[in-house]
Amino acid sequence: MANNFVESITNMEDDFAQWYTDIVKKAELVDYSGIKGCMVIRPAGYAIWENIQKELDRRFKETGVENCYLPMFIPESLLNKEKDHVAGFAPEVAWVTHGGSEPLQERLCVRPTSETLFCDFYSHIIQSYRDLPKVYNQWCSVVRWEKTTRPFLRSMEFLWQEGHTAHATAEEAEERTIQMLNLYADFCEEFLAIPMVRGRKTDKEKFAGAEATYTIEALMHDGKALQSGTSHNFGDGFAKAFGIQYTDKENKLQYVHQTSWGMTTRLIGAVIMVHGDNSGLVLPPLLAPTQVVIIPIQQKKEGVLEKAYELKEKLSAFRVKVDDTEKSPGFKFAEQEMRGIPMRVEIGPKDIANNQAVIVRRDTREKLVVSLDELEAKIAELIPLMQKEMLERARAHRDAHTYTATTMEELKEIANTKPGFVKAMWCGDVACEEQIKEEAGLSSRCMPFAQETLSETCVCCGKKAKTLVYWGKAY
Amino acid sequence: MANNFVESITNMEDDFAQWYTDIVKKAELVDYSGIKGCMVIRPAGYAIWENIQKELDRRFKETGVENCYLPMFIPESLLNKEKDHVAGFAPEVAWVTHGGSEPLQERLCVRPTSETLFCDFYSHIIQSYRDLPKVYNQWCSVVRWEKTTRPFLRSMEFLWQEGHTAHATAEEAEERTIQMLNLYADFCEEFLAIPMVRGRKTDKEKFAGAEATYTIEALMHDGKALQSGTSHNFGDGFAKAFGIQYTDKENKLQYVHQTSWGMTTRLIGAVIMVHGDNSGLVLPPLLAPTQVVIIPIQQKKEGVLEKAYELKEKLSAFRVKVDDTEKSPGFKFAEQEMRGIPMRVEIGPKDIANNQAVIVRRDTREKLVVSLDELEAKIAELIPLMQKEMLERARAHRDAHTYTATTMEELKEIANTKPGFVKAMWCGDVACEEQIKEEAGLSSRCMPFAQETLSETCVCCGKKAKTLVYWGKAY
Repeated sequence: MANNFVESITNMEDDFAQWYTDIVKKAELVDYSGIKGCMVIRPAGYAIWENIQKELDRRFKETGVENCYLPMFIPESLLNKEKDHVAGFAPEVAWVTHGGSEPLQERLCVRPTSETLFCDFYSHIIQSYRDLPKVYNQWCSVVRWEKTTRPFLRSMEFLWQEGHTAHATAEEAEERTIQMLNLYADFCEEFLAIPMVRGRKTDKEKFAGAEATYTIEALMHDGKALQSGTSHNFGDGFAKAFGIQYTDKENKLQYVHQTSWGMTTRLIGAVIMVHGDNSGLVLPPLLAPTQVVIIPIQQKKEGVLEKAYELKEKLSAFRVKVDDTEKSPGFKFAEQEMRGIPMRVEIGPKDIANNQAVIVRRDTREKLVVSLDELEAKIAELIPLMQKEMLERARAHRDAHTYTATTMEELKEIANTKPGFVKAMWCGDVACEEQIKEEAGLSSRCMPFAQETLSETCVCCGKKAKTLVYWGKAY
Repeated sequence: MANNFVESITNMEDDFAQWYTDIVKKAELVDYSGIKGCMVIRPAGYAIWENIQKELDRRFKETGVENCYLPMFIPESLLNKEKDHVAGFAPEVAWVTHGGSEPLQERLCVRPTSETLFCDFYSHIIQSYRDLPKVYNQWCSVVRWEKTTRPFLRSMEFLWQEGHTAHATAEEAEERTIQMLNLYADFCEEFLAIPMVRGRKTDKEKFAGAEATYTIEALMHDGKALQSGTSHNFGDGFAKAFGIQYTDKENKLQYVHQTSWGMTTRLIGAVIMVHGDNSGLVLPPLLAPTQVVIIPIQQKKEGVLEKAYELKEKLSAFRVKVDDTEKSPGFKFAEQEMRGIPMRVEIGPKDIANNQAVIVRRDTREKLVVSLDELEAKIAELIPLMQKEMLERARAHRDAHTYTATTMEELKEIANTKPGFVKAMWCGDVACEEQIKEEAGLSSRCMPFAQETLSETCVCCGKKAKTLVYWGKAY
């Protein structure tokens, strides 16, 4: 029975996409809805998002972020105010044309992102340098009319946070842009155990309307890249389009400088594809909604269930459940593995007689026989240890799948045979970027903050190189 | 300067509606957006909502509720599946007709409420009695195309939670419906300090598609009623329309029994209209995002600001801010009053010399001179005391504005001269309910759980009375 349960997942080596789909369904993270491309996030999936929210929100607030809520609709005329921005988003928005039975005088789009709304808002509430900075964020859902969708990775509607800030100076805006990018990367590494490459997007890949877009890029188990969070510096472009001005200390009118930054439910997809295995989901212990499941063995024997509940009480410092359902222990083990619960504690009559329990780690499957007197201390020790080792394994996997190329031949050879990141020098010309995309099928992921010099020349045209770029195939 | 700030609010006795509007603007709870009827909830307003969410969510989870997230769009064919429900909501929904530049094959409405989506979802995931009960909730925004809107009280888009449950038996569904209604009422009384009348709606006033709707009703300062939360029992009506069946222990197919229940950002409007005064907002201390503001007096004098920061550290068990801006103390006092911060602590050179501070309560304006050694203990004592007294004052106000009528003449006389609740007996006939609405301008608020017998006959037709009803003018 346990085997049947597990065997029904496709092996990731056979079909990574199907493996992913199997996990999101069988770990009960997602259900499909009646609308193509819109998913239902089930309690097991949403509890992961709640933990992400709680931790991110705490980190945001430590840097002075305040939450607010703006309308989900954008009047067409407002969306049209910033040219580059509307060109980027108009083709993929949902349009509301009727309210009740009456046609609207002006179409409203469902927000794909809220720069235009925040600009309108800021133009009302910013008058003086005393009103700056504004460092606001909202947690909400947004809609983008995507043709090809996959749960968490790309869906028509998704949950996210979007921070929008306004500053007196260009320097302060740039500082906030980088601060949030680093906050994102630290969060992903410390909380999701996913290592990130931090860098800047090329002009071709930057956000519609931004002066500069910074990104964090992760490598999935199959060697594909996933853009995991972005932070944009808008300069004063939006401020000029929307007339957001303040009087400075010398009583002169100035435009504000703005940023925005966002992370989404896509992070759940990253966790699945970085840590998951052929038995199911593997959740880092800090993120996991349930950190420990206690599974009683021979639970009908006297004292076993009582002991299980007693252990749960003892472990109240952690997020613990007892699986006291009628299923067999083997089935419960398989379920714990499928759901990615970081540790299971097995406790049966023999264990009780010996004053011990068996802890099984989800990530390594290591079994530890532990005295019941030391159970709490052992779990307290395993949480940071597993968290650290999961990050290290993910980093080792990424590093083992990060290649360098100094010629186009090398680049194409790697692209065709070795899934992963490719580091190569670039001259800064969009023509080379496009040629690499066409010939090698690789897009520029970012110009990393941690620069290296592999050679003096562009991998594509051979002219003088300006920067190192991470290239990859992306989700 | 302090006076100017305060004088700019309309007196509630002169114009209650304008007083309300002044507060939501000047306490910076809300900004108007470019779309009529959609509001921006500013950080001061959203922080109140975050505290409501946190406390309600905690209480939900204690009863076994799990959170999830369903799409914001409902295909027209899905909305149409339950007849009463669609008749109630279709006239007030926003319709999406285009995705990008292409017209949709089927219109989608932006959810006004999510019964139909949850039914579709439940029909996928419920097969056996082992899958029951499902007790799910989501936090989201919904849209209703209202013609007349007011911030928090009635807006086109508002934030809420909607719980949707499925049960094996009718008894269990009814139990959950009542459980959530009581949870709502307890929350409002304990956390918002607003007393509630708990009862059942008449058939005329119940939710579209429900067998029974239960409600909590509050009385605002102006004597108008505010429906503050509702809990619906659907019986198996939706289950039959959507085919949600499970096999019971005898292997027989059965329909599930369902409930739903919701509370919204409207609660913030209730807090304003129950506790506010002519100086601004008054927040109950458990709800207040900032519970104490420390206002330094003569802050440029040596040691004053340092002392203020030191006190903040000392008071770290509470939510405390120091107002160290350049404004005058009088202006800061007025701002604290406008924003409804429950307590201010004034600390100046003389106070420091005497090892004391002055606490001023927002609700009563009482001033207490307190030794710095006892400051923390005093605030810990004031929080539950203010919370209790605010509830008592609101209850006294409500009780003083709750009248009884046994004849139509009395009922009309009260309706014309005394704003408040009117208790009167009713025969159960919708014709009488409509006549009372027409002649006295009062709608039925609820048939309270706490029944009384004022007379044996209906206040309207004189036939045998079935039940006591609370009548009122409602927001």
